[in-house]
Amino acid sequence: MYVRALTQLLSEGISVVSSRQLGHRLQMTPAQIRKDLSYFGRFGKQGRGYDVHFLLEELRQILGLNQEWDACLVGVGRLGRAIINYPGFAPEGFRMRAVFDSDSRQVGGVVGGLRVQPMSALSEAVERDNITIGIVAVPAAEAQSVIDQLIDSGVQGILNYAPIAPQVSMHVVIRNIDPVLALQSMTFYLRELD
Amino acid sequence: MYVRALTQLLSEGISVVSSRQLGHRLQMTPAQIRKDLSYFGRFGKQGRGYDVHFLLEELRQILGLNQEWDACLVGVGRLGRAIINYPGFAPEGFRMRAVFDSDSRQVGGVVGGLRVQPMSALSEAVERDNITIGIVAVPAAEAQSVIDQLIDSGVQGILNYAPIAPQVSMHVVIRNIDPVLALQSMTFYLRELD
Repeated sequence: MYVRALTQLLSEGISVVSSRQLGHRLQMTPAQIRKDLSYFGRFGKQGRGYDVHFLLEELRQILGLNQEWDACLVGVGRLGRAIINYPGFAPEGFRMRAVFDSDSRQVGGVVGGLRVQPMSALSEAVERDNITIGIVAVPAAEAQSVIDQLIDSGVQGILNYAPIAPQVSMHVVIRNIDPVLALQSMTFYLRELD
Repeated sequence: MYVRALTQLLSEGISVVSSRQLGHRLQMTPAQIRKDLSYFGRFGKQGRGYDVHFLLEELRQILGLNQEWDACLVGVGRLGRAIINYPGFAPEGFRMRAVFDSDSRQVGGVVGGLRVQPMSALSEAVERDNITIGIVAVPAAEAQSVIDQLIDSGVQGILNYAPIAPQVSMHVVIRNIDPVLALQSMTFYLRELD
Protein backbone atom coordinates (compact mmCIF):
# COMPACT_ATOMS: atom_id res chain seq x y z
CA MET A 1 0.00 0.00 0.00
CA TYR A 2 2.92 2.38 0.67
CA VAL A 3 4.40 1.59 -2.72
CA ARG A 4 1.03 2.18 -4.36
CA ALA A 5 0.47 5.49 -2.55
CA LEU A 6 4.02 6.74 -3.18
CA THR A 7 3.78 5.85 -6.88
CA GLN A 8 0.58 7.83 -7.05
CA LEU A 9 2.17 10.82 -5.27
CA LEU A 10 5.10 10.73 -7.69
CA SER A 11 2.74 10.69 -10.68
CA GLU A 12 1.08 13.79 -9.21
CA GLY A 13 4.44 15.54 -9.11
CA ILE A 14 4.70 15.48 -5.30
CA SER A 15 8.34 14.92 -4.27
CA VAL A 16 8.19 15.36 -0.48
CA VAL A 17 5.46 14.02 1.80
CA SER A 18 4.84 14.22 5.56
CA SER A 19 3.67 11.36 7.79
CA ARG A 20 0.42 13.27 8.13
CA GLN A 21 -0.16 13.53 4.37
CA LEU A 22 0.83 9.91 3.79
CA GLY A 23 -1.41 8.88 6.68
CA HIS A 24 -4.31 10.73 5.11
CA ARG A 25 -3.79 8.84 1.83
CA LEU A 26 -3.59 5.48 3.55
CA GLN A 27 -6.23 6.21 6.19
CA MET A 28 -3.68 5.65 8.94
CA THR A 29 -2.37 7.81 11.77
CA PRO A 30 0.92 9.70 11.27
CA ALA A 31 2.27 7.76 14.28
CA GLN A 32 1.56 4.45 12.55
CA ILE A 33 3.24 5.68 9.35
CA ARG A 34 6.38 6.67 11.28
CA LYS A 35 6.37 3.37 13.14
CA ASP A 36 5.97 1.27 9.98
CA LEU A 37 8.71 3.07 8.10
CA SER A 38 11.11 3.12 11.05
CA TYR A 39 10.91 -0.68 10.98
CA PHE A 40 12.82 -0.62 7.67
CA GLY A 41 15.30 2.13 8.50
CA ARG A 42 15.57 5.89 8.76
CA PHE A 43 13.81 7.38 5.75
CA GLY A 44 12.56 10.76 6.94
CA LYS A 45 14.09 13.89 8.38
CA GLN A 46 12.37 15.40 11.41
CA GLY A 47 10.13 18.23 10.24
CA ARG A 48 11.06 17.82 6.57
CA GLY A 49 8.99 14.84 5.52
CA TYR A 50 9.95 11.93 3.30
CA ASP A 51 11.57 12.15 -0.13
CA VAL A 52 8.95 10.33 -2.20
CA HIS A 53 11.29 9.03 -4.92
CA PHE A 54 13.95 7.81 -2.46
CA LEU A 55 11.42 6.17 -0.13
CA LEU A 56 9.67 4.47 -3.05
CA GLU A 57 12.91 3.05 -4.46
CA GLU A 58 14.03 1.83 -1.04
CA LEU A 59 10.70 0.14 -0.36
CA ARG A 60 10.67 -1.47 -3.82
CA GLN A 61 14.17 -2.82 -3.15
CA ILE A 62 13.22 -4.14 0.29
CA LEU A 63 10.00 -5.73 -0.96
CA GLY A 64 11.65 -7.40 -3.95
CA LEU A 65 9.67 -5.33 -6.46
CA ASN A 66 12.67 -4.23 -8.50
CA GLN A 67 13.12 -7.68 -10.01
CA GLU A 68 11.05 -9.91 -12.27
CA TRP A 69 8.92 -12.77 -10.97
CA ASP A 70 7.80 -15.73 -13.04
CA ALA A 71 4.26 -17.02 -12.61
CA CYS A 72 2.04 -19.70 -14.05
CA LEU A 73 -1.75 -19.93 -14.26
CA VAL A 74 -3.91 -22.98 -13.65
CA GLY A 75 -7.40 -22.86 -15.14
CA VAL A 76 -8.18 -21.21 -18.48
CA GLY A 77 -11.94 -20.77 -18.09
CA ARG A 78 -13.57 -17.34 -18.27
CA LEU A 79 -11.81 -16.11 -15.11
CA GLY A 80 -8.43 -17.52 -16.11
CA ARG A 81 -8.66 -15.87 -19.52
CA ALA A 82 -9.50 -12.53 -17.91
CA ILE A 83 -6.47 -12.92 -15.62
CA ILE A 84 -4.06 -13.79 -18.40
CA ASN A 85 -5.26 -10.86 -20.47
CA TYR A 86 -5.08 -8.47 -17.50
CA PRO A 87 -2.62 -5.76 -18.53
CA GLY A 88 -1.50 -4.82 -15.01
CA PHE A 89 0.88 -7.67 -14.19
CA ALA A 90 3.70 -7.31 -16.74
CA PRO A 91 4.53 -3.63 -16.08
CA GLU A 92 5.03 -4.51 -12.41
CA GLY A 93 7.46 -7.32 -13.21
CA PHE A 94 5.12 -10.32 -12.98
CA ARG A 95 5.56 -12.47 -16.08
CA MET A 96 3.13 -15.21 -17.03
CA ARG A 97 5.32 -18.04 -18.24
CA ALA A 98 2.96 -21.02 -18.56
CA VAL A 99 -0.73 -21.95 -18.41
CA PHE A 100 -2.29 -25.25 -17.42
CA ASP A 101 -5.69 -26.89 -17.39
CA SER A 102 -6.95 -30.27 -16.27
CA ASP A 103 -9.51 -30.35 -19.09
CA SER A 104 -7.96 -32.17 -22.06
CA ARG A 105 -10.22 -30.16 -24.42
CA GLN A 106 -8.38 -26.99 -23.36
CA VAL A 107 -4.89 -28.49 -23.62
CA GLY A 108 -3.05 -27.46 -26.78
CA GLY A 109 -5.09 -24.31 -27.28
CA VAL A 110 -3.45 -20.89 -27.07
CA VAL A 111 -4.48 -18.42 -24.33
CA GLY A 112 -2.75 -15.07 -23.95
CA GLY A 113 -0.03 -16.18 -26.36
CA LEU A 114 0.79 -19.30 -24.32
CA ARG A 115 0.00 -22.90 -25.21
CA VAL A 116 -2.23 -24.57 -22.61
CA GLN A 117 -0.39 -27.51 -21.02
CA PRO A 118 -1.77 -30.54 -19.15
CA MET A 119 -1.35 -30.70 -15.36
CA SER A 120 1.13 -33.54 -15.86
CA ALA A 121 3.58 -30.99 -17.31
CA LEU A 122 3.40 -28.72 -14.24
CA SER A 123 6.43 -29.89 -12.22
CA GLU A 124 8.81 -29.82 -15.16
CA ALA A 125 7.64 -26.37 -16.28
CA VAL A 126 7.92 -24.88 -12.79
CA GLU A 127 11.51 -26.07 -12.51
CA ARG A 128 12.53 -25.18 -16.08
CA ASP A 129 11.02 -21.69 -16.08
CA ASN A 130 11.97 -20.94 -12.45
CA ILE A 131 8.31 -20.25 -11.64
CA THR A 132 7.83 -19.03 -8.06
CA ILE A 133 4.18 -17.94 -8.19
CA GLY A 134 1.12 -20.01 -9.09
CA ILE A 135 -2.17 -18.32 -9.95
CA VAL A 136 -5.23 -20.48 -9.31
CA ALA A 137 -8.39 -19.88 -11.35
CA VAL A 138 -10.16 -23.22 -11.09
CA PRO A 139 -13.58 -24.01 -9.57
CA ALA A 140 -13.79 -24.19 -5.77
CA ALA A 141 -14.02 -27.99 -5.72
CA GLU A 142 -10.68 -28.39 -7.53
CA ALA A 143 -8.77 -25.53 -5.93
CA GLN A 144 -7.20 -27.27 -2.93
CA SER A 145 -5.91 -30.13 -5.07
CA VAL A 146 -4.45 -27.69 -7.64
CA ILE A 147 -2.81 -25.67 -4.87
CA ASP A 148 -1.28 -28.85 -3.44
CA GLN A 149 0.08 -29.78 -6.87
CA LEU A 150 1.58 -26.31 -7.36
CA ILE A 151 3.32 -26.47 -3.99
CA ASP A 152 4.57 -30.00 -4.65
CA SER A 153 6.01 -28.68 -7.90
CA GLY A 154 8.06 -26.09 -6.04
CA VAL A 155 5.90 -22.96 -6.31
CA GLN A 156 6.39 -20.78 -3.22
CA GLY A 157 3.59 -18.24 -3.61
CA ILE A 158 -0.08 -18.79 -4.48
CA LEU A 159 -2.51 -16.20 -5.77
CA ASN A 160 -5.86 -17.92 -5.32
CA TYR A 161 -9.01 -16.75 -7.10
CA ALA A 162 -11.15 -19.74 -6.07
CA PRO A 163 -13.72 -18.97 -3.35
CA ILE A 164 -12.28 -21.27 -0.72
CA ALA A 165 -10.06 -20.85 2.34
CA PRO A 166 -7.14 -23.04 1.22
CA GLN A 167 -4.95 -24.91 3.65
CA VAL A 168 -1.24 -24.51 2.98
CA SER A 169 1.86 -25.17 5.02
CA MET A 170 3.53 -22.27 6.79
CA HIS A 171 6.41 -21.93 4.30
CA VAL A 172 4.06 -21.09 1.42
CA VAL A 173 2.82 -17.53 0.91
CA ILE A 174 -0.81 -17.31 -0.14
CA ARG A 175 -3.06 -14.41 -1.09
CA ASN A 176 -6.73 -14.75 -1.94
CA ILE A 177 -8.59 -12.60 -4.45
CA ASP A 178 -12.20 -12.93 -3.45
CA PRO A 179 -14.69 -10.19 -4.33
CA VAL A 180 -17.57 -11.93 -2.51
CA LEU A 181 -15.49 -12.08 0.66
CA ALA A 182 -14.67 -8.38 0.21
CA LEU A 183 -18.40 -7.56 -0.06
CA GLN A 184 -19.21 -9.77 2.91
CA SER A 185 -16.60 -7.96 4.98
CA MET A 186 -18.36 -4.64 4.28
CA THR A 187 -21.94 -5.44 5.18
CA PHE A 188 -21.44 -5.35 8.95
CA TYR A 189 -20.49 -1.67 8.67
CA LEU A 190 -23.21 -0.89 6.12
CA ARG A 191 -25.81 -2.20 8.57
CA GLU A 192 -24.52 0.23 11.20
CA LEU A 193 -24.83 3.07 8.71
CA ASP A 194 -28.41 2.20 7.77
CA MET B 1 -13.16 -15.68 6.71
CA TYR B 2 -14.99 -17.45 9.55
CA VAL B 3 -18.16 -17.58 7.48
CA ARG B 4 -16.22 -18.94 4.52
CA ALA B 5 -14.46 -21.60 6.63
CA LEU B 6 -17.64 -22.64 8.46
CA THR B 7 -19.56 -22.91 5.18
CA GLN B 8 -16.82 -25.15 3.87
CA LEU B 9 -16.90 -27.31 7.03
CA LEU B 10 -20.66 -27.67 6.73
CA SER B 11 -20.36 -28.74 3.08
CA GLU B 12 -17.90 -31.41 4.25
CA GLY B 13 -20.48 -32.72 6.70
CA ILE B 14 -18.60 -31.51 9.79
CA SER B 15 -21.08 -30.32 12.42
CA VAL B 16 -18.84 -29.62 15.44
CA VAL B 17 -15.45 -27.94 15.31
CA SER B 18 -12.84 -27.09 17.95
CA SER B 19 -10.88 -23.82 18.18
CA ARG B 20 -7.83 -25.83 17.24
CA GLN B 21 -9.41 -27.25 14.07
CA LEU B 22 -10.86 -23.89 13.09
CA GLY B 23 -7.51 -22.25 13.78
CA HIS B 24 -5.80 -24.76 11.53
CA ARG B 25 -8.21 -23.88 8.69
CA LEU B 26 -7.73 -20.16 9.15
CA GLN B 27 -4.02 -20.30 9.96
CA MET B 28 -4.68 -18.73 13.35
CA THR B 29 -4.01 -19.84 16.92
CA PRO B 30 -6.84 -21.47 18.91
CA ALA B 31 -6.48 -18.59 21.41
CA GLN B 32 -7.14 -16.03 18.69
CA ILE B 33 -10.19 -17.99 17.49
CA ARG B 34 -11.65 -18.07 21.02
CA LYS B 35 -10.90 -14.38 21.49
CA ASP B 36 -12.50 -13.36 18.17
CA LEU B 37 -15.65 -15.37 18.75
CA SER B 38 -16.02 -14.33 22.38
CA TYR B 39 -16.24 -10.77 21.10
CA PHE B 40 -19.64 -11.61 19.60
CA GLY B 41 -21.00 -13.72 22.43
CA ARG B 42 -20.73 -17.21 23.88
CA PHE B 43 -20.79 -19.68 21.02
CA GLY B 44 -18.80 -22.66 22.25
CA LYS B 45 -19.00 -25.03 25.16
CA GLN B 46 -15.77 -25.76 27.02
CA GLY B 47 -14.33 -29.02 25.73
CA ARG B 48 -17.16 -29.61 23.27
CA GLY B 49 -16.26 -27.30 20.41
CA TYR B 50 -18.53 -25.12 18.31
CA ASP B 51 -21.76 -26.16 16.61
CA VAL B 52 -20.88 -25.29 13.00
CA HIS B 53 -24.43 -24.64 11.79
CA PHE B 54 -25.39 -22.51 14.79
CA LEU B 55 -22.16 -20.49 14.74
CA LEU B 56 -22.46 -19.91 10.99
CA GLU B 57 -26.05 -18.67 11.26
CA GLU B 58 -25.20 -16.40 14.17
CA LEU B 59 -22.22 -14.90 12.36
CA ARG B 60 -24.25 -14.41 9.17
CA GLN B 61 -26.90 -12.59 11.20
CA ILE B 62 -24.35 -10.40 12.97
CA LEU B 63 -22.50 -9.57 9.76
CA GLY B 64 -25.66 -8.73 7.82
CA LEU B 65 -25.23 -11.63 5.40
CA ASN B 66 -28.74 -13.01 5.80
CA GLN B 67 -30.24 -10.14 3.84
CA GLU B 68 -29.99 -8.90 0.27
CA TRP B 69 -27.78 -6.00 -0.76
CA ASP B 70 -28.25 -3.93 -3.88
CA ALA B 71 -25.21 -2.90 -5.88
CA CYS B 72 -24.40 -1.00 -9.04
CA LEU B 73 -21.39 -1.21 -11.34
CA VAL B 74 -19.56 1.66 -12.99
CA GLY B 75 -17.47 0.77 -16.04
CA VAL B 76 -18.49 -1.88 -18.56
CA GLY B 77 -15.13 -2.52 -20.19
CA ARG B 78 -13.55 -5.97 -20.19
CA LEU B 79 -13.15 -6.04 -16.41
CA GLY B 80 -16.66 -4.68 -15.75
CA ARG B 81 -18.19 -7.30 -18.02
CA ALA B 82 -16.27 -10.05 -16.24
CA ILE B 83 -17.56 -8.71 -12.90
CA ILE B 84 -21.18 -8.51 -13.98
CA ASN B 85 -21.05 -12.01 -15.38
CA TYR B 86 -19.36 -13.37 -12.25
CA PRO B 87 -21.71 -16.03 -10.88
CA GLY B 88 -20.61 -15.75 -7.24
CA PHE B 89 -22.41 -12.58 -6.15
CA ALA B 90 -26.11 -13.43 -6.48
CA PRO B 91 -26.09 -16.64 -4.38
CA GLU B 92 -24.56 -14.64 -1.52
CA GLY B 93 -27.27 -11.99 -1.66
CA PHE B 94 -25.50 -9.30 -3.68
CA ARG B 95 -27.76 -8.15 -6.50
CA MET B 96 -26.50 -6.06 -9.40
CA ARG B 97 -29.27 -3.53 -9.99
CA ALA B 98 -27.78 -1.02 -12.44
CA VAL B 99 -24.70 -0.45 -14.62
CA PHE B 100 -23.18 2.85 -15.72
CA ASP B 101 -20.49 4.09 -18.06
CA SER B 102 -19.15 7.53 -18.90
CA ASP B 103 -18.56 6.49 -22.52
CA SER B 104 -21.65 7.46 -24.54
CA ARG B 105 -20.90 4.65 -27.00
CA GLN B 106 -21.54 2.13 -24.20
CA VAL B 107 -24.73 3.79 -22.94
CA GLY B 108 -27.90 2.04 -24.09
CA GLY B 109 -26.18 -1.29 -24.64
CA VAL B 110 -27.11 -4.32 -22.54
CA VAL B 111 -24.53 -5.94 -20.24
CA GLY B 112 -25.43 -8.85 -17.99
CA GLY B 113 -29.12 -8.25 -18.69
CA LEU B 114 -28.98 -4.61 -17.59
CA ARG B 115 -29.14 -1.54 -19.80
CA VAL B 116 -26.02 0.64 -19.50
CA GLN B 117 -26.94 4.08 -18.16
CA PRO B 118 -25.05 7.38 -18.38
CA MET B 119 -23.33 8.71 -15.24
CA SER B 120 -25.93 11.49 -15.13
CA ALA B 121 -28.52 8.87 -14.15
CA LEU B 122 -26.47 7.64 -11.17
CA SER B 123 -27.98 9.63 -8.28
CA GLU B 124 -31.57 8.90 -9.23
CA ALA B 125 -30.90 5.19 -9.70
CA VAL B 126 -29.07 4.84 -6.38
CA GLU B 127 -31.99 6.38 -4.55
CA ARG B 128 -34.73 4.57 -6.49
CA ASP B 129 -33.16 1.13 -6.25
CA ASN B 130 -31.86 1.59 -2.69
CA ILE B 131 -28.33 0.84 -3.87
CA THR B 132 -25.84 0.70 -0.98
CA ILE B 133 -22.79 -0.71 -2.77
CA GLY B 134 -20.94 0.70 -5.77
CA ILE B 135 -18.52 -1.46 -7.74
CA VAL B 136 -15.84 0.48 -9.59
CA ALA B 137 -14.28 -1.01 -12.74
CA VAL B 138 -12.99 2.08 -14.52
CA PRO B 139 -9.38 2.98 -15.46
CA ALA B 140 -7.14 4.28 -12.67
CA ALA B 141 -7.28 7.87 -13.90
CA GLU B 142 -11.08 8.02 -13.59
CA ALA B 143 -11.51 5.97 -10.43
CA GLN B 144 -11.31 8.67 -7.75
CA SER B 145 -13.83 10.86 -9.57
CA VAL B 146 -16.23 7.92 -10.03
CA ILE B 147 -15.89 6.98 -6.36
CA ASP B 148 -16.67 10.57 -5.36
CA GLN B 149 -19.77 10.54 -7.57
CA LEU B 150 -20.94 7.24 -6.08
CA ILE B 151 -20.56 8.56 -2.55
CA ASP B 152 -22.29 11.83 -3.44
CA SER B 153 -25.15 9.74 -4.78
CA GLY B 154 -25.57 8.02 -1.41
CA VAL B 155 -23.65 4.78 -1.87
CA GLN B 156 -22.14 3.68 1.46
CA GLY B 157 -19.80 0.91 0.38
CA ILE B 158 -17.29 0.82 -2.48
CA LEU B 159 -15.73 -2.25 -4.03
CA ASN B 160 -12.86 -0.80 -6.04
CA TYR B 161 -11.13 -2.74 -8.81
CA ALA B 162 -9.07 0.21 -10.09
CA PRO B 163 -5.36 0.05 -9.15
CA ILE B 164 -5.33 3.17 -7.02
CA ALA B 165 -5.46 3.91 -3.28
CA PRO B 166 -8.70 5.90 -3.21
CA GLN B 167 -9.37 8.62 -0.67
CA VAL B 168 -12.78 8.38 0.96
CA SER B 169 -14.28 9.92 4.06
CA MET B 170 -14.42 7.86 7.24
CA HIS B 171 -18.15 7.05 6.97
CA VAL B 172 -17.69 5.17 3.69
CA VAL B 173 -16.61 1.52 3.68
CA ILE B 174 -14.16 0.65 0.93
CA ARG B 175 -12.53 -2.59 -0.16
CA ASN B 176 -9.99 -2.87 -2.94
CA ILE B 177 -9.63 -5.84 -5.27
CA ASP B 178 -6.13 -5.57 -6.57
CA PRO B 179 -4.29 -8.66 -7.80
CA VAL B 180 -1.07 -6.73 -8.50
CA LEU B 181 -1.06 -5.44 -4.92
CA ALA B 182 -1.62 -9.02 -3.72
CA LEU B 183 1.38 -10.21 -5.73
CA GLN B 184 3.49 -7.30 -4.53
CA SER B 185 2.64 -8.15 -0.93
CA MET B 186 4.02 -11.67 -1.45
CA THR B 187 7.41 -10.96 -2.97
CA PHE B 188 9.07 -9.89 0.28
CA TYR B 189 8.46 -13.36 1.69
CA LEU B 190 9.40 -15.13 -1.56
CA ARG B 191 12.78 -13.39 -1.47
CA GLU B 192 13.39 -14.78 2.01
CA LEU B 193 12.55 -18.25 0.75
CA ASP B 194 14.91 -18.06 -2.23
